[in-house]
Amino acid sequence: MKKRISIGQYLIHRLVQHDVGHMFGIPGDYILKFYDLLEHSPIRTVVTTREDSAGFAADAYARVRGIGAVCVTYCVGGFNVSNPVAGAFAEKSPVIVVSGSPGMKERVHNPLLHHKVRDFNTQKEVFDKLTIDSAVLDDPRTAGAEIDRVLDSATRHKRPVYIEIPRDMIDVPIPAPGRLEIRRERSDPDSLKEAVSEAVRMINGAKRPVILADVELHRFGLQPLLVRLADKTRIPVAATLLGKSVISEKNPNYIGIYEGAMGREEVRLFVESSDCVIMLGTVLTDINLGIFTAKLDRGVCIEATSEKIAIRHHAFENVQFREFLLALLRAPLHRRPQHGHPNPTEGMNEYRIRPEAPITVNRCFQRLNAFLKDDMVVIADIGDALFGASDLVIHRRTEFLSPAYYTSMGFAVPAALGAQLANPHLRPLVLVGDGAFQMTGMELSTIQRLGLSPIVIVLNNHGYATERQIHDGPYNDITEWAYHRLPEIIPGGRGFKVKTEGAFDHALKAALANRRSFTLINVILDKFDRSIAMERIAKRLAKKV
Amino acid sequence: MKKRISIGQYLIHRLVQHDVGHMFGIPGDYILKFYDLLEHSPIRTVVTTREDSAGFAADAYARVRGIGAVCVTYCVGGFNVSNPVAGAFAEKSPVIVVSGSPGMKERVHNPLLHHKVRDFNTQKEVFDKLTIDSAVLDDPRTAGAEIDRVLDSATRHKRPVYIEIPRDMIDVPIPAPGRLEIRRERSDPDSLKEAVSEAVRMINGAKRPVILADVELHRFGLQPLLVRLADKTRIPVAATLLGKSVISEKNPNYIGIYEGAMGREEVRLFVESSDCVIMLGTVLTDINLGIFTAKLDRGVCIEATSEKIAIRHHAFENVQFREFLLALLRAPLHRRPQHGHPNPTEGMNEYRIRPEAPITVNRCFQRLNAFLKDDMVVIADIGDALFGASDLVIHRRTEFLSPAYYTSMGFAVPAALGAQLANPHLRPLVLVGDGAFQMTGMELSTIQRLGLSPIVIVLNNHGYATERQIHDGPYNDITEWAYHRLPEIIPGGRGFKVKTEGAFDHALKAALANRRSFTLINVILDKFDRSIAMERIAKRLAKKV
Repeated sequence: MKKRISIGQYLIHRLVQHDVGHMFGIPGDYILKFYDLLEHSPIRTVVTTREDSAGFAADAYARVRGIGAVCVTYCVGGFNVSNPVAGAFAEKSPVIVVSGSPGMKERVHNPLLHHKVRDFNTQKEVFDKLTIDSAVLDDPRTAGAEIDRVLDSATRHKRPVYIEIPRDMIDVPIPAPGRLEIRRERSDPDSLKEAVSEAVRMINGAKRPVILADVELHRFGLQPLLVRLADKTRIPVAATLLGKSVISEKNPNYIGIYEGAMGREEVRLFVESSDCVIMLGTVLTDINLGIFTAKLDRGVCIEATSEKIAIRHHAFENVQFREFLLALLRAPLHRRPQHGHPNPTEGMNEYRIRPEAPITVNRCFQRLNAFLKDDMVVIADIGDALFGASDLVIHRRTEFLSPAYYTSMGFAVPAALGAQLANPHLRPLVLVGDGAFQMTGMELSTIQRLGLSPIVIVLNNHGYATERQIHDGPYNDITEWAYHRLPEIIPGGRGFKVKTEGAFDHALKAALANRRSFTLINVILDKFDRSIAMERIAKRLAKKV
Repeated sequence: MKKRISIGQYLIHRLVQHDVGHMFGIPGDYILKFYDLLEHSPIRTVVTTREDSAGFAADAYARVRGIGAVCVTYCVGGFNVSNPVAGAFAEKSPVIVVSGSPGMKERVHNPLLHHKVRDFNTQKEVFDKLTIDSAVLDDPRTAGAEIDRVLDSATRHKRPVYIEIPRDMIDVPIPAPGRLEIRRERSDPDSLKEAVSEAVRMINGAKRPVILADVELHRFGLQPLLVRLADKTRIPVAATLLGKSVISEKNPNYIGIYEGAMGREEVRLFVESSDCVIMLGTVLTDINLGIFTAKLDRGVCIEATSEKIAIRHHAFENVQFREFLLALLRAPLHRRPQHGHPNPTEGMNEYRIRPEAPITVNRCFQRLNAFLKDDMVVIADIGDALFGASDLVIHRRTEFLSPAYYTSMGFAVPAALGAQLANPHLRPLVLVGDGAFQMTGMELSTIQRLGLSPIVIVLNNHGYATERQIHDGPYNDITEWAYHRLPEIIPGGRGFKVKTEGAFDHALKAALANRRSFTLINVILDKFDRSIAMERIAKRLAKKV
């Protein structure tokens, strides 16, 4: 007879096979029993201060490691992760949401159990809007297959999924799981052949082709193919803001971030004057497109993503992104001569410290450019932390994390928790505004308990600076915290308050040396100081308000 | 020709008429223009550190003032209030959610605008699950009527509603609003007559009737009728935990909190041995029913709520709660002789300080009972802050706020912000565990900026104590913060760390004298210390895990 294990153990077994090493969340009575199972499993439980922090941490974990998971109680826990899960959906990050719920036996006669909102399906119905697939494990006959299907959906679409376990089902025995099968969809061979041969003709016929690389390359693990394609053909590569660091920014073929009229002028000119734009893994969002200032002529574009392959004005069905890329690599694409193209590091590394000068956001980023180390992952929150960071030169791949499309504030500090647990060799450099820090910055509490060592730069411009640029009013002012004194509340970290370039330099050096706890640098900026990039983008956003 | 105003101004006009004096929330570009309108209106904007805090504040504001409102940007703001709004739905608190969204003109060709998740309806579809009515103001021909209908739904059902304004609709002119009409539904006269006469017969025929008063009396403003009914008939009144303070706990007819086997034994015996239980405004939740240990025989019950009037095993349709109560007051109900019944203050006021003794949670509540002042509103978070507080004697009406059914942690500190703004004569006494404080306690930031003066008691038992009682594991441990040192981060407040009864006494006196800022008292408890009430309830909860 086939071995049997409990539904809870089955789920844990599959999560481990999918490479979930940590589970973020907060226990509650509807999920306590599952937390107990996790304690006796290879998965390490990470209890955060709030559920939304757990969601952001799981999202960052997924971006670094390929999959992430969060475990919450019913409704009071679940709804608190709705925003991070929505962000993971929008930006294609495969986060597994595991939620407890009232037991099936408790539901008879529809009683008013605590945490219930409208009926027992309410939470599931909400998450159906925010995830790509979901299951309620209320039937032992199907629970195993449901778990397999839903986890497969997460990895195939790189989007969050929702798994709900009524608490009296956790221990119910079902047949033990078989071998993990990863389904891989196949292209229609004729369509693939036609698409590739047309693309090759178009690329080889172009005088100045350019690759525009975006975030899906990262999510689907296709970055090595991108690097090989660029190496083989010497076609210059631009990245989008959301896709920043999808290729090493020191790669000789890399030309910088393209974001329409919002970005550097030389990159815009180079991309928009190209006679063949090869868009790989692109997500055509408003911010990626420079608030729709991007002028890309469809008639010269090849667009390959997980959702479609399109050449000029026609689309190919049943052509898989990975197979299309592999076929391009095998195809007789011309190798281009070495030629001049925009250099993203131009003007960099020229930072000369002026010790007594008040620090500004532009100078802050110049200094950070020289400060970046090979083992760092830059995590940018929303606002100038993101816009200003677009000019940072990222050394390796996958080393820049930011919710650049969904743009939910409060991502960065919890994301540092997730990123450093996903890869302990990475050291997070967190860039976060004061408004965003007030939302989730106290998650340093968990970071401290686990002995992690992010360097957190609070760009303190005394309020919601992006909105100040768009339209100012008293609603953009916030309470001034003494951020650098947080180690007095959460014992163990280090804090610095800096107003000058010299003090910033000193604090950065101390932060680098401190590998045993978080370091927080409270960078005091002028209320109206902003980066050049932010100035450009805010002007565009203001036109829409 | 009729005067015209913009859709945004129309909404503000109606909100003011419905007695919305403050709007909690965080601005964002999709809602900035509406924030600007608010600045030039009688409504005061209160920007919180996080949206969920704004939701809790609006909920508490609604509980004190009759209506509350929260204003957020699209998705990243909206989903962050989903949990407080779900709680307001479960506990019948009329919170108006106002959200911005992308302009109608921007939506052509379904572009990927920032903050968007799946499609432009996603947020509305989520809130349809969590509110009683909703509207998207995308059509000037219907916008006014939609606003009127949705606000009417909120006040009639005492549940949250959702109003979404595409940002390019805010300034669109529509006819100015007419007189505000409050629809009031009427009972069917024959049904009302029959129900009342049967109820009167049953009450007058009973030897020991008792009233069980619950939260709907508060929400629907029917507390004066309850007091008159008790004064007129001398029928003893018990309250539920959710309805605690619905009648002054010093009222001579009040006998204490009934919560099945979870509460005081003498109250349980009194209610369960009654031959006529008059349940008024009851919400029969698991915690209200002492995790279903309540033994109430339907055959002796009269249940009157906003949703139905039921006597024994039959229900009356089309009978309004208020009209039923008014008719009872006019009916020839016997006046009962003064007689012995449980005294909720028995054993109270006997607190003798033992200055050197380590403080315990039971002694803490005994001390607080003597400390309560007439102008205080007690706001209890989840855990022993709630369970232990059930024996506090509340002086006036409506002075005990807690999410006792939905039981979402993190309610109390933001609720203090809402409650004190709703009624500046109230001084909040906040009872909050350390786990809940880590979720939203930093909202003291906003409290400080507005010069409010709550007294915050952090019951610091070093983790999730309720869960420890149910089932302990390392996931119930949290990072130890130096809570009392928060005034060093948020300048202006006062903080105390207390370990003994003497130190607690000293801190309470200093808190009382400090009317200019928040006072935080970090009460250091033993990890396994708990109130008698928590011990009882946790044992019951543990059986369900």
